[in-house]
Amino acid sequence: MSSARQEVVVKGEFPMHRGGALIDPTIAFETWGELDAARGNAVLIFTGLSPSAHAASCAVDPTPGWWEEIVGPGRPIDTRRHFVICVNSLGSCFGSTGPASVNPLTGDIYRLDFPTLSLEDVARGGYEVLKFLGVDRLRALVGPSMGGMTALAFELLFPGLAESLMLMSTGPRALPFSIALRSLQREMIRRDPGWQDGNYPRDTVPLTGMRLARKLGMITYRSAEEWRQRFGRERVSAEHAGGDPFGIAFSVESYLEHHANKFIGQFDPNCYLYLSRASDLFDVADHGGSVEAGLARIRSERILVVGVVTDFLYPMHQQHELVDGLSGGGREVEFVELDSLQGHDSFLVDMDSYRPVIASFFA
Amino acid sequence: MSSARQEVVVKGEFPMHRGGALIDPTIAFETWGELDAARGNAVLIFTGLSPSAHAASCAVDPTPGWWEEIVGPGRPIDTRRHFVICVNSLGSCFGSTGPASVNPLTGDIYRLDFPTLSLEDVARGGYEVLKFLGVDRLRALVGPSMGGMTALAFELLFPGLAESLMLMSTGPRALPFSIALRSLQREMIRRDPGWQDGNYPRDTVPLTGMRLARKLGMITYRSAEEWRQRFGRERVSAEHAGGDPFGIAFSVESYLEHHANKFIGQFDPNCYLYLSRASDLFDVADHGGSVEAGLARIRSERILVVGVVTDFLYPMHQQHELVDGLSGGGREVEFVELDSLQGHDSFLVDMDSYRPVIASFFA
Repeated sequence: MSSARQEVVVKGEFPMHRGGALIDPTIAFETWGELDAARGNAVLIFTGLSPSAHAASCAVDPTPGWWEEIVGPGRPIDTRRHFVICVNSLGSCFGSTGPASVNPLTGDIYRLDFPTLSLEDVARGGYEVLKFLGVDRLRALVGPSMGGMTALAFELLFPGLAESLMLMSTGPRALPFSIALRSLQREMIRRDPGWQDGNYPRDTVPLTGMRLARKLGMITYRSAEEWRQRFGRERVSAEHAGGDPFGIAFSVESYLEHHANKFIGQFDPNCYLYLSRASDLFDVADHGGSVEAGLARIRSERILVVGVVTDFLYPMHQQHELVDGLSGGGREVEFVELDSLQGHDSFLVDMDSYRPVIASFFA
Repeated sequence: MSSARQEVVVKGEFPMHRGGALIDPTIAFETWGELDAARGNAVLIFTGLSPSAHAASCAVDPTPGWWEEIVGPGRPIDTRRHFVICVNSLGSCFGSTGPASVNPLTGDIYRLDFPTLSLEDVARGGYEVLKFLGVDRLRALVGPSMGGMTALAFELLFPGLAESLMLMSTGPRALPFSIALRSLQREMIRRDPGWQDGNYPRDTVPLTGMRLARKLGMITYRSAEEWRQRFGRERVSAEHAGGDPFGIAFSVESYLEHHANKFIGQFDPNCYLYLSRASDLFDVADHGGSVEAGLARIRSERILVVGVVTDFLYPMHQQHELVDGLSGGGREVEFVELDSLQGHDSFLVDMDSYRPVIASFFA
């Protein structure tokens, strides 16, 4: 299958936000649409923890992207009008340099020698892509989930570059409940003997740890009410359960198993650990002394905050904190509270609710 | 240390609710206070998944019990007025027969040869204790968490025996969100190589799986808001983190580690698996065709339902389902909604809120 992935190599030393440096890191990205003559129609999208830069299909790569219904010709982020850029996070494993990449200084895979990753570094990766593309202002900066925190980091590192900002299911800092969940996911991977302190062979990953971590992810990305309506107490057929007294018996267990199996071969475990910890470490307060002071420094003039009542990773009070902190200073801040059932993942699946909200912001 | 634990051996075959049978099972229990001459002052407490029958201290065993502030002389469940009985669940590992016990037919530990455990079996274990003690009616039946579902099973199997019923942080059936969480906890244990398909040596348990399962338990037993107020983004001192890039950095991670370490040596993993699955399997609808029909069969005349708004294992809509289903039929049903911060565990820790509610019910 052909790929629409492009890459920029950032030549020289790339100093990391919390110390250390990378040499000649690569940032992978994809683009849709054309940059107009005034160079004024660019939109930059940062992703959640696990997606690649393939947000939408295109002629070169017709496979559906992770935001297929949002990005494209005639879609809410209309690629006939906008030049849309999506970057693969620094630290990830879909083209950008990360812990699974080779360290050019040693010729070995970085693994745990990769320096501490911060979302500020991910944001700067996006900035390097803009420089490479000759984009010096953004009509809009878009970030769902971890991508929203990355977008906030971008705003604080490169003030005034984005005219507008769309934050979805995100928050100004990681709180202890989500830190605890991510910490446990990391521990599941790290305690899998197959992890080998990060030194698993390239073609053999700690599958058990990744499977458990992904299942916990799925549980925290969706909502209890969605599953109550969708699965109830429905059982799987007896054949699936087998003779194992603790085998899969309920449909919800089968659903988790199916999704975990899809994920575990795709994502590098060390990259997962670094991006997960980077989310824990993020705090707008690091840029100004408090969340309020940090948010007050953001320069985008139009801001949309979208939160979901069933999202317990980035709960509604964090949406209010964003809205309150961003309001004032001449900024026009819109807040949309959605009652989608699908929890944190709603921005990926409840397209009927998101489509009009995003379309209206970009109209 | 001396133990106040008593035991009854149920002679002969003990048929299990979902098939199979135990031979001569033991049910462990403790009692406080005296049965009065009219045999009318008995109170039976079923426990959550992990506690023993040691709900409160006594002269023989002065160590504090798991409900020390609720049960005792002058306490809300006043042992000067009531004869209080707490049973260790069948299937557990604190004196009652369970998967860690020796099967008298083979001389080997049951392990996975233990038949499927249901909360109906746990309820019948409690009934056998009452028979042994010569108690043929209960002034009150009390069940928090899994113990609440066991109390419902008891009501349905032995109708009319309990004059009143107190249900706390429980529900009429397991829903897919809590099933998913428990299923993942079980998988953490079962995928630990040390589990050895249930055949771990008696003195070496799958510590990693138990540690992970307990941490997930802690996360689901408390609430995001409690942790936000309690830990925020507080860090541990650098010594605790060590050189591990994914070591403990935040106070909430240290808290989980501490609690997991306390738990993992105490509870038998196979017992945990059986009790966890028994919770998934429970459904009042099995007794009457629907939750409504099952609840309508309950005969206690006075019922108290206590729910906590921050409990996401047994959410508020399940409390309403209990109240709605139990109301009518001449029963007096009281509902108390507490705004305790501590989530599902509130009944164990937010004593200032629970004490007056329970005292008033028993007054």
